[in-house]
Amino acid sequence: MIFQADGATICALSTAPGMGAIAVIRVSGPDAIGIGDALFSRDLRRADSHKALFGVIRKGEQLIDEVLLTVFKGPNSFTGEDVIEIACHGSVFIQNQLLQLLVENGCRYAKQGEFTFRAFFNRKMDLSQAEAVADLIAAESAGAHELALNQMRGGFSNEIAHLREQLINFASLIELELDFAEEDVEFADRSQFTKLLFEIEVVLKRLIDSFQTGNAIKTGIPVAIVGKPNAGKSTLLNALLNEERAIVSDIPGTTRDTVEDRVNIEGVSFRFIDTAGLRETEDVVEKIGVGRSKDAIKSATIVLYVYDVNEHTDASIAAVEAQLQHDLDPSRQSLLMVGNKIDEHADHSSSHTAHLFISAKHKTAISDLQETLINLSNLRLNTEGSTVTNIRHYEALTSAYTSLQEVLIGMENAVSGDFLAIDIRKALHHLGEITGEITSDDLLGNIFGKFCIGK
Amino acid sequence: MIFQADGATICALSTAPGMGAIAVIRVSGPDAIGIGDALFSRDLRRADSHKALFGVIRKGEQLIDEVLLTVFKGPNSFTGEDVIEIACHGSVFIQNQLLQLLVENGCRYAKQGEFTFRAFFNRKMDLSQAEAVADLIAAESAGAHELALNQMRGGFSNEIAHLREQLINFASLIELELDFAEEDVEFADRSQFTKLLFEIEVVLKRLIDSFQTGNAIKTGIPVAIVGKPNAGKSTLLNALLNEERAIVSDIPGTTRDTVEDRVNIEGVSFRFIDTAGLRETEDVVEKIGVGRSKDAIKSATIVLYVYDVNEHTDASIAAVEAQLQHDLDPSRQSLLMVGNKIDEHADHSSSHTAHLFISAKHKTAISDLQETLINLSNLRLNTEGSTVTNIRHYEALTSAYTSLQEVLIGMENAVSGDFLAIDIRKALHHLGEITGEITSDDLLGNIFGKFCIGK
Repeated sequence: MIFQADGATICALSTAPGMGAIAVIRVSGPDAIGIGDALFSRDLRRADSHKALFGVIRKGEQLIDEVLLTVFKGPNSFTGEDVIEIACHGSVFIQNQLLQLLVENGCRYAKQGEFTFRAFFNRKMDLSQAEAVADLIAAESAGAHELALNQMRGGFSNEIAHLREQLINFASLIELELDFAEEDVEFADRSQFTKLLFEIEVVLKRLIDSFQTGNAIKTGIPVAIVGKPNAGKSTLLNALLNEERAIVSDIPGTTRDTVEDRVNIEGVSFRFIDTAGLRETEDVVEKIGVGRSKDAIKSATIVLYVYDVNEHTDASIAAVEAQLQHDLDPSRQSLLMVGNKIDEHADHSSSHTAHLFISAKHKTAISDLQETLINLSNLRLNTEGSTVTNIRHYEALTSAYTSLQEVLIGMENAVSGDFLAIDIRKALHHLGEITGEITSDDLLGNIFGKFCIGK
Repeated sequence: MIFQADGATICALSTAPGMGAIAVIRVSGPDAIGIGDALFSRDLRRADSHKALFGVIRKGEQLIDEVLLTVFKGPNSFTGEDVIEIACHGSVFIQNQLLQLLVENGCRYAKQGEFTFRAFFNRKMDLSQAEAVADLIAAESAGAHELALNQMRGGFSNEIAHLREQLINFASLIELELDFAEEDVEFADRSQFTKLLFEIEVVLKRLIDSFQTGNAIKTGIPVAIVGKPNAGKSTLLNALLNEERAIVSDIPGTTRDTVEDRVNIEGVSFRFIDTAGLRETEDVVEKIGVGRSKDAIKSATIVLYVYDVNEHTDASIAAVEAQLQHDLDPSRQSLLMVGNKIDEHADHSSSHTAHLFISAKHKTAISDLQETLINLSNLRLNTEGSTVTNIRHYEALTSAYTSLQEVLIGMENAVSGDFLAIDIRKALHHLGEITGEITSDDLLGNIFGKFCIGK
C-alpha cells in the first residue's frame, strides 16, 4: 500500500525546483517540531504557531544556512499534523543539504501528493478538494483556475454531500420498512419520494452535462487547423501563439511552462491538435487538404479551414465548405472558414461574408479571429451549481445516475423495499467515491500519484 | 540612475520560476502593508509582524487564491522596509495573476537584486555581504557555499572594518599634525605607526593571496583533459560526471541545474575546460594529442593527460611526460598522467609508478582519480581569517596594498604628513569600496544587476 498513514515525518521541497532567491522546504508529521528544534538555533518547542523565526540551521558545527522557519501546530496546518516550513536561500546546493540533513535526522522524503494525502486523511479536505489542489497548481487559464479554486473550496463537495444526505434519509426509511416487513407499513411516502428522486436526477443530469464544458475549460478546447499545403496554417498558428507569448513575457521573474500549441484567449484555453503535421512537408497535394487531418477533425470542437484567397474562386471555396459541413457533427462541432493572404490580394471582396479574412503573415485581423474562436467555443458554465472537470467524478456521477434510474423504475413497478434499497446504496456508493467516503488504495494511489512532489 | 531609493513599493516572485506546490511572492516598500491589506481578506494593518495569516486574495469579486500571508514590519525585515510575503499555490497562472494584481494596486516590478539593494541601502548589510547573498544562491559546492555564507554573515566585513579603523586612527593623527604644522609637533609616533602599517600590510597580503584559492573554490578548479584521439578522454569525463549525477539524483523534488562539465568532489568543484573539443571528431592525429588544447592547458590548474596503456611503451610515455612538464608552470600547474583501458591489457605493470591506471569504460579506479584530483587541487584555506572570492574585492585590496606601500616608502623617506595623508586616504578609499562606504551608481548597478529577480 503506497498511501497510508505510517506515522513518519516527511519532508520535501515545496517550491519549484531549480535556483531562486528563496526556496521553501516543508516538513510534516509527529516529529516535525522535534527534528526542526534539533537543527535550528532557536527553541521550536516553545515557539508560537504561525510565527516566522529568523535563525540558522547547523549540521553539527557546520553552518548550512540562515533561514526563516515557521511552525504550524496541528491541527491548524495544511496537513492537520505538526508542520514546519523552512524558507532558505534558493541555491540547489542548500536545498539538497537541508533535505539530506532532515533525512539524517529522522525524516523521510515525501512521496508525490503525500502532504495533500495527509490533509485528506486528517479530514482537512475531502477527496474532490484534494484533487482540486492538483488541478489548481496545473491550471493555465482563468477558466480552469476558477473551476479548480471553487472545487478546492468545497463548492462541489457541498453539492454532492447534499445529494447524499437526501438519499440517505430516503434509504433509511426504506430500510426501516424492511424491519417491519411483516406488518406491511410504508414509512416512506412513495409519491413524495418519487418527487425527491426526480429532483436528484435533475441535479445529477446537470452535473453530468457540465462535464463537456468543464473538461474543455480544463484541458482546452480542441481546434483542428486544416487546409491545403501553403495555405498558411503554421504561420497562422504561430501568429496565435506569439500573440500570447508577447503578453506574458513582460512580467519579470516569471516564466511560462510553454505548453506547445496551446493558447489562452480571454481566459479560455484552446488546444491545437495534431499540429505536428502542420510543420511537415506536405508533398501530397490533394483537393481540399484535409486528408492527413481526418483524426484531428473528428476530435475537434472547432475545425478551422485555412485557404489562400488568391487561389480560390468563391464557387470553388463554397464547394469545399459544403463538403466539410457534411463531415462535421453540428451538435458538437463548428466550422470556421478563414481566407488567408489578403495582403497579396488587391481585391479581396468575397461573397462569403461569414468567412474571416486575415493575413497571418502580417497579423492582420488576428484579434477578430481570436474573438470568433471565443464565440465558437460556446462554453455554457453552470450558473446554478458546480461544473464537473474531472473524468473520475463524471464516471461516478454517471454510475450514480444509472443506479437512480433503477430506483425510479423500481418505484414505478412497485418492487419491494429490499430491491429499492440495493440500488439506493449503489447510488450512495458512487457519490461517496467522489468525496472519498468510499476509497481504495488503488484509487488513492492513482489520484495522489499525479501530484507534484512537495504538495 | 538604476539603483536609488525611489520610495516605490516593489514586488517579485522570490522562489524559482515555474510550477511548484507553492510559490512565494515578496513585496517591499512603504505601501507593502497597505496594498496587501486592500487585496487580502484579513486586516493587515493591525496584524502582528512575522505572523503567517491564512486567507484569500481577491481581484474585485474574483477569487485569485487561498494564501498564507506574512507581514514583516520594517526595520525587522530582509530589506529593512515593511515587507509582505505571500505564499500562494504554485501555478504559473496564479503567480502571474498575483503579480499583475499587485502592480495594478500600486507596486512596481522589482529589478534584479533590488530587494538586496534595499537591504544594503537601509544598512541591514554592507556591500560585501550583499554580494555574498548572490554568491550563496549560486554556490554549487560545499566550499563555495561555506565561503559565501561566512562572507554574508559579516566575517570578511569585520576584518575590513577593523583594518579601516586602524588606518583612520592613524590618518586622523597625521591630519591633526597638519593643523599644528607651524608648531612642528608629532602626534603620531612614527615608529609605532610603521609597526602598525606592517601589520596591516601582512593582513592585506594574506587576503590578496587567498584570492587564488577563493576564486578556485568559487568558480571551480580548471582542469584540462588532453591526450591523443581514442585515448578515452570523453569516456573519462563522462565517468566523472555520471558518478556525481548518480549521487544527486536520488533526492526527489530537487533537480540540479546541470552545469556542463563541472564536478563536485568532496565539496570541491572542478571545471573541465574546453571540453567541447573532446567530443569532436579529431581527425588530425598528432604525436601526443595536445595541439588543439594549448589554450586549455595554459589556463588549467591541473592538466590531465590520458593515454591508452595498450599503445605506449614506458619509454614513449616518459618522453610525452617530459615534454608536458616542460610546458607547464610548476608554481601554479600540476600534471596528472592517467593510463586508460587497463581492462584491455593483460599485464599493465609499468615503471611509471606515479601514473594512475584506470578503465574509464568500466569505471575502474575512478575513485582513486577523484582522490588524486582533490590532492592536486591543493586548496589552502585561510585558517586565521577570511578568504577572498570576489575579483572586485581582490582588485580593491590590491589597490589598497599599493597605496599602503606608498605610505611605507613615505615614512621611510620622512616625507611630510600631508603627502602621507593622501596615500592613507587612498588606501581607506579602496577598503571602503569593498564594504560600500564608497560607492557609485555604476558599481551598484554592476553588482546588483547580477542578481536574480526576487532577491
